[in-house]
Amino acid sequence: MSAYSLATLATVNANSLPTMQTSVQNDLFLRACRRQPVERTPVWMMRQAGRYLPEYRAVRATTDFLTLCKTPELVAEVSIQPVDLVGVDACIIFSDILVVPEAMGMHLIVEEGKGGPQFPEPIRSRADIDRLRLPDPEQGLKFVMDALRLTRQRLNGRVPLIGFAGSPWTLAAYMVEGHGSKTFRHIKELIYGNPSDAHMLLTKLADAVSAYLTAKIAAGAQAVQIFDTWGGLLPPDMFREFSLQYIERIVHQVRKAGAPIIVFCKDCSHALEAIAATGAEVVGLDWTTDMADAKRRIGSTTALQGNLDPTMLYAPRDVIRRGVRQVLEKFGKGSGHIFNLGHGILPDIPVEHAREFVKAVQEESVGYHS
Amino acid sequence: MSAYSLATLATVNANSLPTMQTSVQNDLFLRACRRQPVERTPVWMMRQAGRYLPEYRAVRATTDFLTLCKTPELVAEVSIQPVDLVGVDACIIFSDILVVPEAMGMHLIVEEGKGGPQFPEPIRSRADIDRLRLPDPEQGLKFVMDALRLTRQRLNGRVPLIGFAGSPWTLAAYMVEGHGSKTFRHIKELIYGNPSDAHMLLTKLADAVSAYLTAKIAAGAQAVQIFDTWGGLLPPDMFREFSLQYIERIVHQVRKAGAPIIVFCKDCSHALEAIAATGAEVVGLDWTTDMADAKRRIGSTTALQGNLDPTMLYAPRDVIRRGVRQVLEKFGKGSGHIFNLGHGILPDIPVEHAREFVKAVQEESVGYHS
Repeated sequence: MSAYSLATLATVNANSLPTMQTSVQNDLFLRACRRQPVERTPVWMMRQAGRYLPEYRAVRATTDFLTLCKTPELVAEVSIQPVDLVGVDACIIFSDILVVPEAMGMHLIVEEGKGGPQFPEPIRSRADIDRLRLPDPEQGLKFVMDALRLTRQRLNGRVPLIGFAGSPWTLAAYMVEGHGSKTFRHIKELIYGNPSDAHMLLTKLADAVSAYLTAKIAAGAQAVQIFDTWGGLLPPDMFREFSLQYIERIVHQVRKAGAPIIVFCKDCSHALEAIAATGAEVVGLDWTTDMADAKRRIGSTTALQGNLDPTMLYAPRDVIRRGVRQVLEKFGKGSGHIFNLGHGILPDIPVEHAREFVKAVQEESVGYHS
Repeated sequence: MSAYSLATLATVNANSLPTMQTSVQNDLFLRACRRQPVERTPVWMMRQAGRYLPEYRAVRATTDFLTLCKTPELVAEVSIQPVDLVGVDACIIFSDILVVPEAMGMHLIVEEGKGGPQFPEPIRSRADIDRLRLPDPEQGLKFVMDALRLTRQRLNGRVPLIGFAGSPWTLAAYMVEGHGSKTFRHIKELIYGNPSDAHMLLTKLADAVSAYLTAKIAAGAQAVQIFDTWGGLLPPDMFREFSLQYIERIVHQVRKAGAPIIVFCKDCSHALEAIAATGAEVVGLDWTTDMADAKRRIGSTTALQGNLDPTMLYAPRDVIRRGVRQVLEKFGKGSGHIFNLGHGILPDIPVEHAREFVKAVQEESVGYHS
């Protein structure tokens, strides 16, 4: 299990939080999610609690990845680091999408420098699917809920707190392959060769993720993001059938909890209209989508999040600022834009470049709001 | 150098070939490239001369990759294998896109099972770019030209012969990184931080590729394909500036040679109209592009090549056939469609599945042509 601390728990009181923190001092992010007027465009970065920060690496030097995920005190610490150190307008809870399949009964291994997380016993049969259980988030994923409560308390209303989950398709891809893959042969064999089993697995995952995100909102998340990292592996028809359909199922279940939902499907710009039609308040864009094109297609009904090329943060600071201005110009005037990178910040980006990115958005965007 | 054989050369006479082979017995592919009527849809597969074929593996068991590329007798043998063994309607010459940078002066290493080709001295300065030479294809790349002449002779008009090259952007990405990469940090740093040097490199590559493809056509290639494997790394604006602009430069120079040109930019469905506007006769589609959507967007002026998900060939044969029918149905009636996979055939696909794919296209497509 984890290095979970009872002492930490004692400082957290789930029920008292919502009344303790009725207002967020910087609510730009939440207003932009709902396309309400803002004074400037809010900005955060996917993977902002991560290895590019020396302070994060210092925590990781003494704690392996999964232990970190399961220690609320440390999760709160690394989740808040980018708020303090980089000045982002939202805090996303540090975690991993694969803690959900683990809580469903799969053995998860994350070894340092061994090419990503692994499931040594991947899903390869209907029996494997049947064996997966639907976890009660306050039991099997209590460490996440406690981390949210503690982080929300520690943030003390400075910026909103975001929770997240992997999409059913993305989780299934990992669970069936057992690890990352170039071709994703096994999950493709499943959907092409045995689609009914695939739908069984995806339905189960959609229900697990819905319960998980709903519990996260109850524990303090003020918005949630669904990551569909591998949606772009699928032909458009198959994307709708095996990924988007299940994201929509989650959106329908989770929206009752009242927090804005962000859906980010990587490499799926062909499907922007369909993603917006799930009912999500915000659609995340990777950097291969033109922001002006996305705004024209879905911007009249949906907020947009994104989408600077993450490798642009390798460039000199004046180039980063110019890149920020270009994205702002493409979105144009008005609310409904949450600035972000088009994917996670890369681990070897200099921190001062991340700071310049955030500062550039905060300064340059003022002119786009009245 | 290579295991190049003078004995082989003696059997090839470049000048006599065009008159020897004035007609192609199966010219479906060439007619479809020009959107002329066909009796059925032609089909070939990217990487069809490759590891999924036991006969190819038998050749590779005795010959390393680069020696194979540089031995015309063996190139002809493996290039023709899929024509004989799988029944495809076109023959693509076996080679590698990186022989062009090698001929420009870069040291290329291809070690078995070491994660792909490498340039141990990558391009990292203006001096490195200046040092690259524009090779005379009949000198520095004579082994490719000889292979084309020999393959064309051996094909004896059965099916058309296709030559190919990497796009300048894709070649530059390898040359600057030195090897494949997850983030392509160095080439991104170059284009964002020092775009004028990047343009210098890309211009040089466009001219080298133009000369190379023109020489390939003179040596017997009846169509040529430009592969932009890494175009999808770029935001749409940058794709136009750093990749498509140089593909267009090549198309303008090579089209004088009179052979149809296919442009395949992976993960670039956002730019189909712009790709068609280069003047290429055929636009290649990866499997994440909807064929019906592509036809609607550019099918009235441009032939389309593609685009079954290559992982669908893992599926049972009836599923493969159903997948083929779906793509045919999306394209609809009429010429201007060359069936292909949406990317190269994967090395662990069973040969009988590849055969079923080809056969399914050849049988199922008849009804779409009058």
